Amino acid sequence: MPDTQPISALRTALAEAAAEIDVALDQILPPEEGPEAPLLAAMRYAVIGGGKRLRGFLVLEGAKQFGVSRQAALRVAAAIEMLHAYSLVHDDLPAMDDDDLRRGKPTLHKAYDEATAIIAGDALQALAFGTLADEETHSDPAVRVELVRCLARAAGARGMCGGQMLDMLAEASGEVLDEAHVGRLQLLKTGRLIEFSAEAGAILGKAPPPLRHALAAYGRDIGAAFQIADDLLDATATPAQTGKRTGKDAEAGKATLLGILGLERARMQAERLVDQARHHLDSLGERADLLRDLAGYTIERKS
Amino acid sequence: MPDTQPISALRTALAEAAAEIDVALDQILPPEEGPEAPLLAAMRYAVIGGGKRLRGFLVLEGAKQFGVSRQAALRVAAAIEMLHAYSLVHDDLPAMDDDDLRRGKPTLHKAYDEATAIIAGDALQALAFGTLADEETHSDPAVRVELVRCLARAAGARGMCGGQMLDMLAEASGEVLDEAHVGRLQLLKTGRLIEFSAEAGAILGKAPPPLRHALAAYGRDIGAAFQIADDLLDATATPAQTGKRTGKDAEAGKATLLGILGLERARMQAERLVDQARHHLDSLGERADLLRDLAGYTIERKS
Repeated sequence: MPDTQPISALRTALAEAAAEIDVALDQILPPEEGPEAPLLAAMRYAVIGGGKRLRGFLVLEGAKQFGVSRQAALRVAAAIEMLHAYSLVHDDLPAMDDDDLRRGKPTLHKAYDEATAIIAGDALQALAFGTLADEETHSDPAVRVELVRCLARAAGARGMCGGQMLDMLAEASGEVLDEAHVGRLQLLKTGRLIEFSAEAGAILGKAPPPLRHALAAYGRDIGAAFQIADDLLDATATPAQTGKRTGKDAEAGKATLLGILGLERARMQAERLVDQARHHLDSLGERADLLRDLAGYTIERKS
Repeated sequence: MPDTQPISALRTALAEAAAEIDVALDQILPPEEGPEAPLLAAMRYAVIGGGKRLRGFLVLEGAKQFGVSRQAALRVAAAIEMLHAYSLVHDDLPAMDDDDLRRGKPTLHKAYDEATAIIAGDALQALAFGTLADEETHSDPAVRVELVRCLARAAGARGMCGGQMLDMLAEASGEVLDEAHVGRLQLLKTGRLIEFSAEAGAILGKAPPPLRHALAAYGRDIGAAFQIADDLLDATATPAQTGKRTGKDAEAGKATLLGILGLERARMQAERLVDQARHHLDSLGERADLLRDLAGYTIERKS
């Protein structure tokens, strides 16, 4: 069987999941009504109809291992995508990465204005937590509150925000970071949320701890591989391919594993991570095949 | 008995609560360790050692009505103060209100920089939710997740963020708002979080719904009274008294109830709200006396 076939099945599954997640987001986001309508429009602009939905897909596939209802998994996927979208909106602000293009369209502060982008990001974060806490997500409050606790950890000062801060500090200082420091930066900035995305289905399904930990470890590894692939794309792809500005890491003098290891060793490390990620799934059956394929896809994608 | 005595007892209680809340915040905020230390320092700068702690005090006094443990109440008080502090940090940003002074010291983006202020605000919001979701806050997950759900509602697009947006839109359009519109703006911007603060103790104490609703209604009324008092202070007090820039509403042409109603009618409306707030506490006993005193204090305070 040619290698492209599972990738093609994966692409179809990714596209279907993205469409379903958009429907869920449309249902969860408040309608554009009342005097706050411009804020709600900005929130929708930031989160609906864009992105690969890698995080949401991880939730859906993780949930599938444990027979979780699609409705519950989609709400959690939507919550994580809202959290991710808010982080992109704030990262793109002039005081941060100052980007004009995101997911092939103007960034939120370009399409609206800075104040709206700040507030819409803040409101998306609140709605992400509110969505997890809502009864509709799961009948068991212990499950809902565990999701909230883990998302807060992945998103906070020892997670995404901490990684964002390390990124800013590295850029401001101009110091050359070593591999360990860059690894920590990326684990916090993107890894923790991807790890939680992979783990969330197990939380929803009240999976035995070893399986929950296996999915989390899988998430950490593909998160790291994904980051290296992102660096490679930034260095080699065009904005038309990725839908955002490229070449900006080199331009900003950003420390990446690619910069430290060089092209060949970075590729090898990404492949090693993909293998390791797949091994974490050994205790799961055929139902985890899309997750196995996804591991390889993270480093083969072109956008 | 002279009218100053209950106010003096209230002042003592407020000061004691503020000190206790600072201790709780110090315990909850991650230590300034690791490469993320500058972020953690910024978070502490934004939230420890400042403000009246009105919201935290409401949690503590509400919790007292139902025999909730001090530890649980303090954690919820700290979470709400973190949420409130993040909103001030983001409101003060150049793209928003562009303020240099807050609680008598430089605003966070002045003391650090804009990127740090954006990220520290984001991380404080995540930590607020994480604190509510943590087992240490309450043994019952249903209680914890209800706190999360209500905070998310108070903080989001139909709460604080929505109010902030209405404020920005009003300023940008230069239109003169009517009383109903200003009322909605203020209910969302500050009222919903004060309402939740008053209600949180009842949630922690699993209070019967009528008592929970009474406390929420009390919170809504003193929130509205507090806002009018804030307008009056902005119009009449000095920065030395309030620890922040004053006269800025008039300068920015901001629509306030004071501007619409005039000094005398605004004062009368605040007094009417205070009476109404006190009435909501009729079904509570002597233990609610500090809450009764607080209602009057909101419009008598000088800072």
